[in-house]
Amino acid sequence: MPSYKLRYFDLRGRAEVIRWMFACSRVEYEDDRIKSEEWKEMKNNVQDFPFKQMPVLEVVSDDGTKTVVAQSQTILRFVGTELGLNGKTKFDVARCDMLNEHVMSALMTLPWEVEDKEEKARLMLEAVTGPITEHLKLLETFVQDSGHLVGSDFTSADINFSTACEFLTPTCPALLDCVPKLKALDEKVRGSPGIAKWIAERPVTHI
Amino acid sequence: MPSYKLRYFDLRGRAEVIRWMFACSRVEYEDDRIKSEEWKEMKNNVQDFPFKQMPVLEVVSDDGTKTVVAQSQTILRFVGTELGLNGKTKFDVARCDMLNEHVMSALMTLPWEVEDKEEKARLMLEAVTGPITEHLKLLETFVQDSGHLVGSDFTSADINFSTACEFLTPTCPALLDCVPKLKALDEKVRGSPGIAKWIAERPVTHI
Repeated sequence: MPSYKLRYFDLRGRAEVIRWMFACSRVEYEDDRIKSEEWKEMKNNVQDFPFKQMPVLEVVSDDGTKTVVAQSQTILRFVGTELGLNGKTKFDVARCDMLNEHVMSALMTLPWEVEDKEEKARLMLEAVTGPITEHLKLLETFVQDSGHLVGSDFTSADINFSTACEFLTPTCPALLDCVPKLKALDEKVRGSPGIAKWIAERPVTHI
Repeated sequence: MPSYKLRYFDLRGRAEVIRWMFACSRVEYEDDRIKSEEWKEMKNNVQDFPFKQMPVLEVVSDDGTKTVVAQSQTILRFVGTELGLNGKTKFDVARCDMLNEHVMSALMTLPWEVEDKEEKARLMLEAVTGPITEHLKLLETFVQDSGHLVGSDFTSADINFSTACEFLTPTCPALLDCVPKLKALDEKVRGSPGIAKWIAERPVTHI
């Protein structure tokens, strides 16, 4: 089996969904957390960070060759395939993929770039109660009888939705009340043994 | 072999890369162009348009079942897999994927939402000569000795880069002069038989 090293800041941010996927599958990986001071020196090493960005995933294959996979959403899909978390058929893969795109487009409506704290809080609430709620209502229609978004078991789509909620519910704790199937799914994801253990033990960070 | 119907506005826009992929592979598909007036009525049919957006790809499998794949980047990846345009190994797939993410993040710096024509032209030039040029210089480093971005043949990464250029070069015709390997790749993609034929015969639209 290959070995994996996930490199990111000491934050949940864009890497947390990948950590949850490893936790869900109980597959070992190295969770390499890089300090902001170190990052300034490291980021121009394009061998390690092809786009001068994190996260990246280093994969050492059985024959010893090392490959760097970059771009957070690419890593999500790659790890999904590696761990069997993108469903069983090619259409399952496409369904995970398009639901993950939908969740990403919801997160893109958040005011990431705004620095002023009060203004940011105001715009967060506006986004969460507006376009994000609309995105969630649409996502609710994709929950299957199994309670999962794709097929009858956990996939990257379930996990990605649930990690996205961690960005949203601090602003609006009742957010999922209008989407009961998703609310149940979020609880199911957070309660699954590997992920519950990770949440209990992970480093505490502000985002 | 499945049959494919691509549904989008009568525009190049977010669908053109998919049309080029079919053209490159010489695989038949239906290029269904929907008028804006019709779209207003159709968009709430979530069976056909799961996210109330286009493009979507309808796939009818050999056993007659119909599946709708939505989200432009999901369709790009799905069609890449169907047509063998995502490379040969799992790391080729990841490389195509991350380069396509890089190109998309470049396009996201364009002022899509600005309506005022003069302001839009000014911001387009600013983006193309600023962040877009930086993105291209980084992408240039990924061109292999083969002249391709991934492996030694055309992939979705080559084609996606080249269709992205169609949005950019009208603003700045000399854009690719600072990235000669990409400039040669763009010519190679546009000159490949299936794509050259498509470019010569396709409907002419403003974007």
